[in-house]
Amino acid sequence: MKGKIFGVGVGPGDPELMTIKAKKILDTVDIIAIPKTAKDKDSLALTIAKGACDRDWELLELVFPMSKNVEYLEDSWKEAAGVIEEKLSKGLNVAFVTLGDPTVYSTFIYIYKILINKGFEAEIISGITSFCASAARAGVSIAEGAEKIAVIPLVNDIKELIHIMEDFENIVLMKVSKNFIQIRELINQRADFNKTVLVSKCGMEDEFISLDINKIDNNDLSYFTTMILKKNGV
Amino acid sequence: MKGKIFGVGVGPGDPELMTIKAKKILDTVDIIAIPKTAKDKDSLALTIAKGACDRDWELLELVFPMSKNVEYLEDSWKEAAGVIEEKLSKGLNVAFVTLGDPTVYSTFIYIYKILINKGFEAEIISGITSFCASAARAGVSIAEGAEKIAVIPLVNDIKELIHIMEDFENIVLMKVSKNFIQIRELINQRADFNKTVLVSKCGMEDEFISLDINKIDNNDLSYFTTMILKKNGV
Repeated sequence: MKGKIFGVGVGPGDPELMTIKAKKILDTVDIIAIPKTAKDKDSLALTIAKGACDRDWELLELVFPMSKNVEYLEDSWKEAAGVIEEKLSKGLNVAFVTLGDPTVYSTFIYIYKILINKGFEAEIISGITSFCASAARAGVSIAEGAEKIAVIPLVNDIKELIHIMEDFENIVLMKVSKNFIQIRELINQRADFNKTVLVSKCGMEDEFISLDINKIDNNDLSYFTTMILKKNGV
Repeated sequence: MKGKIFGVGVGPGDPELMTIKAKKILDTVDIIAIPKTAKDKDSLALTIAKGACDRDWELLELVFPMSKNVEYLEDSWKEAAGVIEEKLSKGLNVAFVTLGDPTVYSTFIYIYKILINKGFEAEIISGITSFCASAARAGVSIAEGAEKIAVIPLVNDIKELIHIMEDFENIVLMKVSKNFIQIRELINQRADFNKTVLVSKCGMEDEFISLDINKIDNNDLSYFTTMILKKNGV
């Protein structure tokens, strides 16, 4: 019998924000697959898993380079799926750990599609997204009543953001460190998005929460920075 | 010393999708506040909490009527906050349980604002949203790479949905039972949103998952129905 692949969301940082189910699976599988951007980098997802489970695993370190070259990326997904497939074919279960939730901007989904197409059994275990955790830590809602939500993983074009501001009451901006100053200027020029919070490294030891983005006096923000913009917010 | 109010997200239905932290808090507080739409209705959030914790609590049943009358709603929030305040003032901790996540379309946030403004200590404990769990169960991503996400709690105007379809690669539609047929017609008229899944009562015993919405031959869908529309989806 072949093994099963689990995509396990470990949440944003605090090991206690893992689900009961995620912990249960990590307590039972023998092998953990860890996505990394480079071989020598630490894996935050593994650190979180270790924080909730008092045990060791066989580790499959999978390197997914930060690249915009689609062919290059696809090759890395195929290679990673191949490494996992070898273990599954031996009847071993594998948990692929992923920050946040496996369905929200996670590399796991590419591996999932490859392995499902090859006939392997796979299950996705939801995790707390960084934007839900950021809202909780900052004490704001992401949306209320009939309001809509827009999530933008990276603002590449400020005009696109302006366009979305017309249609949405709530906007989640992820990875804002790149163009934070430009986005702040835009918000300050307008009167409608009058409640904005910013959270860096949510749930981690060096977490930073700002309820007044104008008090952030530099743009030296972590890669893991999320902003929540609320129209007519109270 | 005054008590503390916790807003605890219990996730979409499966008690194991509660976080470790949520369970820990429900294991320690003496009082649970349960939101209800009517006094005689069961509370799904309480059922989920009971599924993860082997104990009883003192229950505060809070009625929040389904209404669009803002004054009427605000009165119900103030009344509920008053009932909780009485317990907090006696030094008792209270957990307000909420389906999904407390920052995403939850009644808790109104109670939270009232109690925070009165100087009470409050903490929000994130939960798995129904849309993350629905994507996991249907085996699709909510978003990949640089794609954006739109979340619409209820489609009131089909023209607004068409407008959002131009700008977003992924659209989450909650509570689609009301106008499912109309939305399906729209999707079928277009070629771009070629991957659509539907999940009703995600994680519950009578869960229903559809990977082909054209095979749903009636509009007798549960109130708890979510659709995920993916542009150029694979």
